[in-house]
Amino acid sequence: MIDTALRTVWWEDQACHLIDQTQLPTAFTVVRCEQVEAVAHAIRSMQVRGAPAIGVTAAYGMALAAQQSDANTSVALLADLRQAQALLNATRPTAINLAWATDRMLTLAQQHAASTPAALRDLLLAEAERIRDEDEAMCRAIGRHGAALLRERHNVLTHCNAGGLATAAYGTALAPIRTAFAAGTPLHVYVDETRPFLQGARLTAWELQQAGIPLTLITDSMAGHFMQRGQIDCIIVGADRIAANGDVANKIGTYTLAVLAQAHAIPLYVAAPTSTIDLNTSDGSAIPIEERAAAEVTQLAGQQLAPAGVMAAHPAFDVTPHRLISAIITEQGLVQPPFASGLAQAVAQAEQARQR
Amino acid sequence: MIDTALRTVWWEDQACHLIDQTQLPTAFTVVRCEQVEAVAHAIRSMQVRGAPAIGVTAAYGMALAAQQSDANTSVALLADLRQAQALLNATRPTAINLAWATDRMLTLAQQHAASTPAALRDLLLAEAERIRDEDEAMCRAIGRHGAALLRERHNVLTHCNAGGLATAAYGTALAPIRTAFAAGTPLHVYVDETRPFLQGARLTAWELQQAGIPLTLITDSMAGHFMQRGQIDCIIVGADRIAANGDVANKIGTYTLAVLAQAHAIPLYVAAPTSTIDLNTSDGSAIPIEERAAAEVTQLAGQQLAPAGVMAAHPAFDVTPHRLISAIITEQGLVQPPFASGLAQAVAQAEQARQR
Repeated sequence: MIDTALRTVWWEDQACHLIDQTQLPTAFTVVRCEQVEAVAHAIRSMQVRGAPAIGVTAAYGMALAAQQSDANTSVALLADLRQAQALLNATRPTAINLAWATDRMLTLAQQHAASTPAALRDLLLAEAERIRDEDEAMCRAIGRHGAALLRERHNVLTHCNAGGLATAAYGTALAPIRTAFAAGTPLHVYVDETRPFLQGARLTAWELQQAGIPLTLITDSMAGHFMQRGQIDCIIVGADRIAANGDVANKIGTYTLAVLAQAHAIPLYVAAPTSTIDLNTSDGSAIPIEERAAAEVTQLAGQQLAPAGVMAAHPAFDVTPHRLISAIITEQGLVQPPFASGLAQAVAQAEQARQR
Repeated sequence: MIDTALRTVWWEDQACHLIDQTQLPTAFTVVRCEQVEAVAHAIRSMQVRGAPAIGVTAAYGMALAAQQSDANTSVALLADLRQAQALLNATRPTAINLAWATDRMLTLAQQHAASTPAALRDLLLAEAERIRDEDEAMCRAIGRHGAALLRERHNVLTHCNAGGLATAAYGTALAPIRTAFAAGTPLHVYVDETRPFLQGARLTAWELQQAGIPLTLITDSMAGHFMQRGQIDCIIVGADRIAANGDVANKIGTYTLAVLAQAHAIPLYVAAPTSTIDLNTSDGSAIPIEERAAAEVTQLAGQQLAPAGVMAAHPAFDVTPHRLISAIITEQGLVQPPFASGLAQAVAQAEQARQR
C-alpha cells in the first residue's frame, strides 16, 4: 500500500528530485536535478507532467537557478532569474501553473530586491517549498469539496492522470476519489488509457492500484460504449488551464468525453487548484495548444506502430467549452455555472488566504 | 505503388493463403492454411480480420474441410462440413459475414447432396472462389456508389481498417475513398489509430500510404478535437453486422464517433456489402459483442503498458443506433433512413442478382 501522500517532486540535499514518470509503471526511478537546465529537460520530456506538478517543479527550477547563480548583487541575480524563467516557461505552453509559479518566484525576488543575494537565495527556496506544500494542501481541500459529488455516483470515469503524480501529492481529479473512498464510498473507477502517452494506463492505474481503489482500464474509444450501457455515473478530469469564462484546456480527449457526457446526461467535473485559473485568458480560443512530436503517436517505446513516413498529428490538449462542464472543484470550493464570477471569486479568495 | 486490388485472402496450390495482418506494417508475411483448423486459428488470432475478409476466409475454410474429409459418401461429407461450420462460427461472434458464408457453403452442399463427394468438393471450392470474387466486385460497387458523397466533403475520417485488408480486395469504407481519389477528388483522410489493435495505424495508414492518398494519423481521442476545429467533413466506417433496423455493430469506438458526428452536424456513412446485413437480428441490442482478452489492452507486442494485475475491459465492438447514421453504402446502392425497408430491399436485390 502506497502512502497516498507519496511525493512527486521534492527538495533534498540541495537539489530538486522527481519521480521519472516516463518509466512508470515498469520502473520506479528518481531523477535528481542540480541545475535549472535539468529541470527544464524534465518538464519538456515529461519526466514530470501534470499542470500542478509542473508548477511546483518550475518553482524549484527557479530556486535552483538562484543557487546556481554566481551573481554577487541582487540586480545580477534578478537578471539570472529572468533568464531561468524564460527557459522554464518555454518548455511547455499550455499549463498555466508553470508561468504562474515562475512568476510568483520572480515577483517575490523583485519585492526583496534590497536583500543580499544570499538572503534572496534562501527566500526563493523557502517559497518553492511553500508552493509545494500549498499544492498538496490544495489537493486535499479539492478532495474534501469534491467527495460529496461522488456520494450517489459511484462509477467514475477519469482521463489522463490528474492524480498524485500530476501534483505535489494526492492529486486533483483523483483527490475526490481518494477522499470519498477513504470515507467508505464504494467507488469503481474507469480509467481511460489516454493515448498517446498512456498516462491513464501507466500512472492512474498504478496510483489507484496502490491505493486499493477498484478500477477498470479501458481504451479511450470505449468511453462512449460504457456510457451508452449506463455503466458510468460521472466524469472527473483535471485541467491544464482554465480560462476566465470556464473553458478548460486539458489532455487531448477531454473534449470528446465532454460531448459524450452531455449526450448521456452524465455530469463532467473538472478538479483543479486556483493556480490553474487564468483570468487573463478570456476564453478557450486564446489558450495555446501544444503540438508535440508525431513520433510520440507513431512509435511506442522505440517500437514503430505505424508505417515509416506516415504523417501524424499530436495536439497534446484540447479545449472543452464551459457549457459542457457541470462544476469546477477548486480548493476554495465548488464553482458552478455561470463560471466567470465564481472563478474570479475563487482566485480572489485564494489570494487573500495566501496573504493572511 | 501497390495494386489497389491486392488480395487479402486467396486460394493457391490447394490451400488458403492470407496476409498475416498482425505482422503489418513492419513485416509482410503470408500464412498458408492447409486445414480448416488453421483457418479457424487465423480468424481467432486476427491474422485475418474485417467482416467481409472473415467471410471469404471462412468460405475457404469450408472448402478446405471438404478437401480434408475422407468421407466417401455425401452424407458423411455433410456431417464433416457441419462440424467445420461449428468450428468456424465459434471463432468470432460479432461479424455476421462469417455465419453468412459458412451457411451459404453448407446450403449449397445440401442442395447437391445427391452428387458424389468428389463433385461436392469441386463445387464447394468453386463456391468459395465465387464468394471471394463477389466480395471484390461488391467492394468496387460500394466505391462507385459512395464516391459521390465525397465530392464536396474532402476531409474524411475513418476508424479501424475497412480497407482492402478487411475484404477480399479494395475495401468497404476505403472503397469510396479509393474511387473518388482515382477520379481526382482531392481527399485527405484522418485515420483513427484504433486502439487496442491499432488497425488504423498499422493497416489503414499502410493501405493509404501505398495508394498515395494523403492521410493524417491521429489517436482515437483526437477525433472530437478535429471535428470541433472544423477539419473533418464526414466519417466513413465499415460494419461487422447491420441489424434489420439499421443499427450497426462495428469496431469499438465507432459509437463515440457517431455521437461526436451528430454534435458537429457531420454525416456518418457506413459502407458494407449486403452480406453484412442481418435481417434476422431486429436491432442492435440483439447483436453479440465479442469480449476479447484484457491483455490485448494492457500489453502491446509483449510489452507491459499497464501495471501487472490491473483489470481491463476489452469489448471489441460497439453498437451505433441507426438514428446517428446518415446513410449505408452497399453494393446495391445507398440506403437512407428509414433503414428497415431499404435494407430489406437491398438484401432482396442482392439475392436476385446472385440467382440471375
